[in-house]
Amino acid sequence: MPELTAPLASDTITIRVRYPEADAMGYMHHSVYVQYLEMGRIELLRKLGHSYANLESQGVFFVVTKLQVRYRAPARFDQVLTLTTKLVRQGPVRFDHEYELSRNDILLATASTTIACVGADGQVRAIPDEIQVND
Amino acid sequence: MPELTAPLASDTITIRVRYPEADAMGYMHHSVYVQYLEMGRIELLRKLGHSYANLESQGVFFVVTKLQVRYRAPARFDQVLTLTTKLVRQGPVRFDHEYELSRNDILLATASTTIACVGADGQVRAIPDEIQVND
Amino acid sequence: MPELTAPLASDTITIRVRYPEADAMGYMHHSVYVQYLEMGRIELLRKLGHSYANLESQGVFFVVTKLQVRYRAPARFDQVLTLTTKLVRQGPVRFDHEYELSRNDILLATASTTIACVGADGQVRAIPDEIQVND
Amino acid sequence: MPELTAPLASDTITIRVRYPEADAMGYMHHSVYVQYLEMGRIELLRKLGHSYANLESQGVFFVVTKLQVRYRAPARFDQVLTLTTKLVRQGPVRFDHEYELSRNDILLATASTTIACVGADGQVRAIPDEIQVND
Repeated sequence: MPELTAPLASDTITIRVRYPEADAMGYMHHSVYVQYLEMGRIELLRKLGHSYANLESQGVFFVVTKLQVRYRAPARFDQVLTLTTKLVRQGPVRFDHEYELSRNDILLATASTTIACVGADGQVRAIPDEIQVND
Repeated sequence: MPELTAPLASDTITIRVRYPEADAMGYMHHSVYVQYLEMGRIELLRKLGHSYANLESQGVFFVVTKLQVRYRAPARFDQVLTLTTKLVRQGPVRFDHEYELSRNDILLATASTTIACVGADGQVRAIPDEIQVND
Repeated sequence: MPELTAPLASDTITIRVRYPEADAMGYMHHSVYVQYLEMGRIELLRKLGHSYANLESQGVFFVVTKLQVRYRAPARFDQVLTLTTKLVRQGPVRFDHEYELSRNDILLATASTTIACVGADGQVRAIPDEIQVND
Repeated sequence: MPELTAPLASDTITIRVRYPEADAMGYMHHSVYVQYLEMGRIELLRKLGHSYANLESQGVFFVVTKLQVRYRAPARFDQVLTLTTKLVRQGPVRFDHEYELSRNDILLATASTTIACVGADGQVRAIPDEIQVND
């Protein structure tokens, strides 16, 4: 039986669905989930002691290179959702995250992303040591 | 009887309402109108021979300082709207625009904005001569 | 000296600026302020004991008919803003609100809106008694 | 050598990047690509003779169940992008699409989605015969 690998770091936040985030079906639009994933990454970074706004002002940017989302159940305006963000892999220039978005006990979506570190010029650069997570 | 003053410049564009721009009522969200007004200004500028993207790369930015919208009738997903943008006043550092958004013969909204010219530092600066409109 | 009129009701919320809400200038886009005003109205309603989501499910909708915003200073990604929403007038079918958005002691914007009550058919209808605010 | 399979249907549209779609890096935000994919699907459907707005009014909705995006190069405000949308598989209740987004000869992103047909109640239903594509 394989061992479950613990994430390097994880964080859980709650987000209330805003009115314009729902579409004419009454469902939160599927592009909004992608914005929530980014909020999850930014808050995980904050929990680890880093401000993404400060990183950018120091010329450290992250761009998404890969995104996968599985949508399982809809969300609606005003619902309070729970997003868990896990850092599952880190390399010299990239982080891989996995996500679970749910409402109460209902799993709404799972997702994974790869983000790469770039400079103000958009060229790939090493992730600064201080934001690498130690095992 | 007062004379009608002709605008200094005007332009009309059509915009098709996108799916996520409609909210759970099925109506285009009222914040989206504000994005359309900006598209009207950018296209009017283009018609006058200027690219807002180029202006920004030269350190010429415009920020909205005043906005008024009167919403008269809703728009829905996939409808093709007509937006007329008029430059009605220009000063050394600001432009005033007026707008009419309609669908077929139905007036959906009227609006007015004031935009001010700022540099990359956010400080007010003179509008470059070449983008002032001659009477 | 005129007496200051107290609002019928008011509420203050904080909102952290999200990454995609900032534009290429680094400023929160001016259309996003309009979404924040709506969040202010919804939270004021909640404070008064009403859920806008529930109202909609009962066929009570509000549409914005008039909007005015004065933009005074920019906001940036990750800043925490304070929005005060005041109900300043109520009529049989409409509510007037006024707003102040600030960051620390810096006033970023003031705004006012008129919203009208409509049914699921989009026709104006009376605001239900239970959501009128008593003086 | 494997044969290349032709898509069941395909369409190419151009989209100009809007100002608020760019973020503080100056890049089109990665969530916006997801909105563009939906525009590609809607226009492909229109090319095949169907209006998604009309389908919805007949109780035929599509929800995204799976999304994958590979981001390869950034897009910026005002650039005109080319999106090719291909219907690559159809089943009784789902369509699979693949996408290429490019600017001039630069490939910006590739993507794939699965969409499922649901009724107004959100329950999976058969895709109506008339919108199935014949080989």
